[in-house]
Amino acid sequence: MEIGFIGTGHMGLPMARQLLRAGHSLKVWNRSPEKAQPLFAEGAARAAAPAEAVALGGVVVTMLSDDEALQGVVEGPGGFLDALGGGLHISMSTVSPALNRRLSQAHLARGGALVAAPVFGRPDAAAAAKLNIPCSGPAHARARALPLLRQLGQRVEEFGEDPGAANVVKLCGNYLILSAAQSLAECLFVAGANGLDRKAVMDFYAGTNFACPVYQGYGGRIALGDHSAGGFKLSLAQKDLRLFGLQDGAQGLPLKGMLEDRFREAMSRGWGDQDVTALARLMSE
Amino acid sequence: MEIGFIGTGHMGLPMARQLLRAGHSLKVWNRSPEKAQPLFAEGAARAAAPAEAVALGGVVVTMLSDDEALQGVVEGPGGFLDALGGGLHISMSTVSPALNRRLSQAHLARGGALVAAPVFGRPDAAAAAKLNIPCSGPAHARARALPLLRQLGQRVEEFGEDPGAANVVKLCGNYLILSAAQSLAECLFVAGANGLDRKAVMDFYAGTNFACPVYQGYGGRIALGDHSAGGFKLSLAQKDLRLFGLQDGAQGLPLKGMLEDRFREAMSRGWGDQDVTALARLMSE
Amino acid sequence: MEIGFIGTGHMGLPMARQLLRAGHSLKVWNRSPEKAQPLFAEGAARAAAPAEAVALGGVVVTMLSDDEALQGVVEGPGGFLDALGGGLHISMSTVSPALNRRLSQAHLARGGALVAAPVFGRPDAAAAAKLNIPCSGPAHARARALPLLRQLGQRVEEFGEDPGAANVVKLCGNYLILSAAQSLAECLFVAGANGLDRKAVMDFYAGTNFACPVYQGYGGRIALGDHSAGGFKLSLAQKDLRLFGLQDGAQGLPLKGMLEDRFREAMSRGWGDQDVTALARLMSE
Amino acid sequence: MEIGFIGTGHMGLPMARQLLRAGHSLKVWNRSPEKAQPLFAEGAARAAAPAEAVALGGVVVTMLSDDEALQGVVEGPGGFLDALGGGLHISMSTVSPALNRRLSQAHLARGGALVAAPVFGRPDAAAAAKLNIPCSGPAHARARALPLLRQLGQRVEEFGEDPGAANVVKLCGNYLILSAAQSLAECLFVAGANGLDRKAVMDFYAGTNFACPVYQGYGGRIALGDHSAGGFKLSLAQKDLRLFGLQDGAQGLPLKGMLEDRFREAMSRGWGDQDVTALARLMSE
Repeated sequence: MEIGFIGTGHMGLPMARQLLRAGHSLKVWNRSPEKAQPLFAEGAARAAAPAEAVALGGVVVTMLSDDEALQGVVEGPGGFLDALGGGLHISMSTVSPALNRRLSQAHLARGGALVAAPVFGRPDAAAAAKLNIPCSGPAHARARALPLLRQLGQRVEEFGEDPGAANVVKLCGNYLILSAAQSLAECLFVAGANGLDRKAVMDFYAGTNFACPVYQGYGGRIALGDHSAGGFKLSLAQKDLRLFGLQDGAQGLPLKGMLEDRFREAMSRGWGDQDVTALARLMSE
Repeated sequence: MEIGFIGTGHMGLPMARQLLRAGHSLKVWNRSPEKAQPLFAEGAARAAAPAEAVALGGVVVTMLSDDEALQGVVEGPGGFLDALGGGLHISMSTVSPALNRRLSQAHLARGGALVAAPVFGRPDAAAAAKLNIPCSGPAHARARALPLLRQLGQRVEEFGEDPGAANVVKLCGNYLILSAAQSLAECLFVAGANGLDRKAVMDFYAGTNFACPVYQGYGGRIALGDHSAGGFKLSLAQKDLRLFGLQDGAQGLPLKGMLEDRFREAMSRGWGDQDVTALARLMSE
Repeated sequence: MEIGFIGTGHMGLPMARQLLRAGHSLKVWNRSPEKAQPLFAEGAARAAAPAEAVALGGVVVTMLSDDEALQGVVEGPGGFLDALGGGLHISMSTVSPALNRRLSQAHLARGGALVAAPVFGRPDAAAAAKLNIPCSGPAHARARALPLLRQLGQRVEEFGEDPGAANVVKLCGNYLILSAAQSLAECLFVAGANGLDRKAVMDFYAGTNFACPVYQGYGGRIALGDHSAGGFKLSLAQKDLRLFGLQDGAQGLPLKGMLEDRFREAMSRGWGDQDVTALARLMSE
Repeated sequence: MEIGFIGTGHMGLPMARQLLRAGHSLKVWNRSPEKAQPLFAEGAARAAAPAEAVALGGVVVTMLSDDEALQGVVEGPGGFLDALGGGLHISMSTVSPALNRRLSQAHLARGGALVAAPVFGRPDAAAAAKLNIPCSGPAHARARALPLLRQLGQRVEEFGEDPGAANVVKLCGNYLILSAAQSLAECLFVAGANGLDRKAVMDFYAGTNFACPVYQGYGGRIALGDHSAGGFKLSLAQKDLRLFGLQDGAQGLPLKGMLEDRFREAMSRGWGDQDVTALARLMSE
């Protein structure tokens, strides 16, 4: 299949590569074209603007860092909205549900459709086609998107017609992750303060009641005090927490309010580029 | 082996039964003897007081509901402290680390020893010998306790000499669980408020990033709004949270403070006998 | 929704109850009506024949023990084929893909459709709505069946249009399970023969590389030598192995041939009603 | 602590690095010294012979490819047996239980001891201190080895006094893995032959009943037909299967016999350097 692919950052790059290897033809645009170089070397075509990456009635995948970047490639200068026309936009960025809903309207007005399909997983999961992907949007559009999504993920789960729904699932899931990181930070701080080996305690939890990727990954980093590793950047996590807070029902939730305070404090110390587990440093300092 | 077994509540009963089936001889005491009836029917002997359940230099297992009950059977009227003498006390209740440390001193003064071995797992895990058990205490005493503990659990992990250490691991683990319950409550409340099917969302998380017993169990109950089921009673969870708060380093932790508020509120509404996931009702009401 | 439900054995009963509790109206038929009694007590209506359980154009769920039983309720005396007409048959039994394909044709000829949706999971998973369900059949029919299936399962995965596909997935999955049981039997036999504690060895594997339901469940039973428990009956497992062997490509597979020999041997010793893990007894005897 | 480290292949190298980072002083020997270069750069000292890597009464870790290599560094020219004297040999290679038992006698005769501690996990698990490690040997020696092993692994499980026991656990575990690989090969071959997408089927199993590292890893590679990746070399797997077959009770086991045939066939086709999942190619060719 001919696919436009827009956004080849640390997640977009391995995802695009996966589609290439599955036999698709890709036309790629990235703001910094040098980041897409490995894809050109593997046979992807180069687009000079988002609009050039898409074909009328075709399929385009977007994987960008935030609302502003996504809006730009669709509706900004050189944006693909009219060039795509009645085609399919698979919107995979972690953005606000509201933006996907609004863009969906714009596509519908041109006979096209948007399927929201944000991803859970890090770059190595993307490279192994092991992402977990909630998706939502019009049924016929989902049916067209599904085979592609299954080539990128190990689990693709549909959440109905609302093009905002999948990103609610993504933001709520990230909220669970951030809450878990804070509770692990407090828990292991207390374990350490009482003379226990933090790694041994964490290995025990992560091998029993909490034997799942989030606790194994985040817990491991907190136990070792390694917050530099290129995981989930604290500043991006704060962005996701902010988006979660804008959803219906999220106002005044007590754990959320507490987390917002911790992120504000961590950002004020200049830790925005560290892993989100740097939250744990607030306790030991 | 001849074993004294004290405390045959909803956890102690299946644990004692497991020991019987593994071929041990049990002498059992419980404050309400009728609860131990099934064990007598399977061959356990009946003790009229804690002191009668133990043999000088023997092994006794205690599984009681709180500090007061444990202290009572050791040092109270009819308590087994002197009757056990140089024997081994395997203390499996979820009590304060401080109590186990103090009782350990009392046993040491008589040539005996205490091994702390609190358990993670519900009655069905106890019945299937699938508990997860941190343990700590003097090395020689642990060596004597280990074969028994392995007949009760699927994982037994040693945490050194301090007879308080295992209960720190237990309280910190329960703290992770309570934090997870609150974050699930908030997360699924927001998902529901945005029109999503809470069960479908939870099934997705519990099958991917959070594919572990705690999220599958507590998340499932919160998603279905079923807080009656006989899981982890809110009043007992509050007790554990209070004990966690007494450990070194736990003062002033922000998530802990927030949780304490929520428990106080839930208790004030008379929900102490409900499952701890009833915390989620605070949001929907 | 009004649903016909046919087959209330040890799996069908908790599944039907789940649908009742989710608010559906059920009309139930079972060959032995007394097994459906609990459902009648919870408000289900009683049908005197399969055909009476369904409404023209309605939805019917079948959960039966084998090909013959399923064929009977559809096409036999009192069968529902014509009574259902253009309705939807959700076929959840573990039967041959070929039968579902053939029945699908019969339904299509009447304007109706069949969706195959066999289940993975035991009665307790059914009671907790935690089944795992592959499904396949015409897209429009799957869209109608999905909301119901999601109320029964924790994961529902679509495998395209072929009404036989889902049962291929089921039979292949059961084949993995039976192979795992045999390898566990040999592995633990050797561990035991070399003086190791089989339970301790199994707990180690089941907590690390093989930390998944199949190894935890079957491995646990083999380690303890408990083959009586009401799990997966050896005679039913042999049926599934036979059906697997009828699929394209399965002829001459070496592991399959070996397994068939083991089942034949176990059946010849009269162990058909034992748990499938009784295969392990062939070694120790 | 001062530690001798012998064998810095693809597993030994990251293990040694982990010990360096945990603050130990290492003296390293490897047959091909250039492979140990990264460790020298990080501060490890260089030994000109195995005997020079150890101190009298000290601790030495060995991580070698087979029985012959291990025997060589202990008893061969330049071997460390006498130089270690009353010290501790932590033997982590996947070798025969018999060799560890024999070497244990040799160490005991000099007042020293051997603890067997083979590992489950690939190089990336070694680099993240997430190995799973069964261990066995004299109790006092295990007590000395445990803190080191816990710095290398996420789970360390003790299997008693017999210095051969841990390697029986390792060989039996590898046997489970090889059996799983063969059953996955057959299962996915049939799924594919019936028109199913092998990756989708595997993702379903690996996310439900078989949600564990072995099925996720080996199943994923078989589904994608990628047997080149640097996992578990077929020739090494055959060696482990051979060692398993030498243990008590392993003679005449039917699954084992079948697997031996498959390995012989695969080796005869020159696939020894491929991943063990290349067994699946025997079906498709």
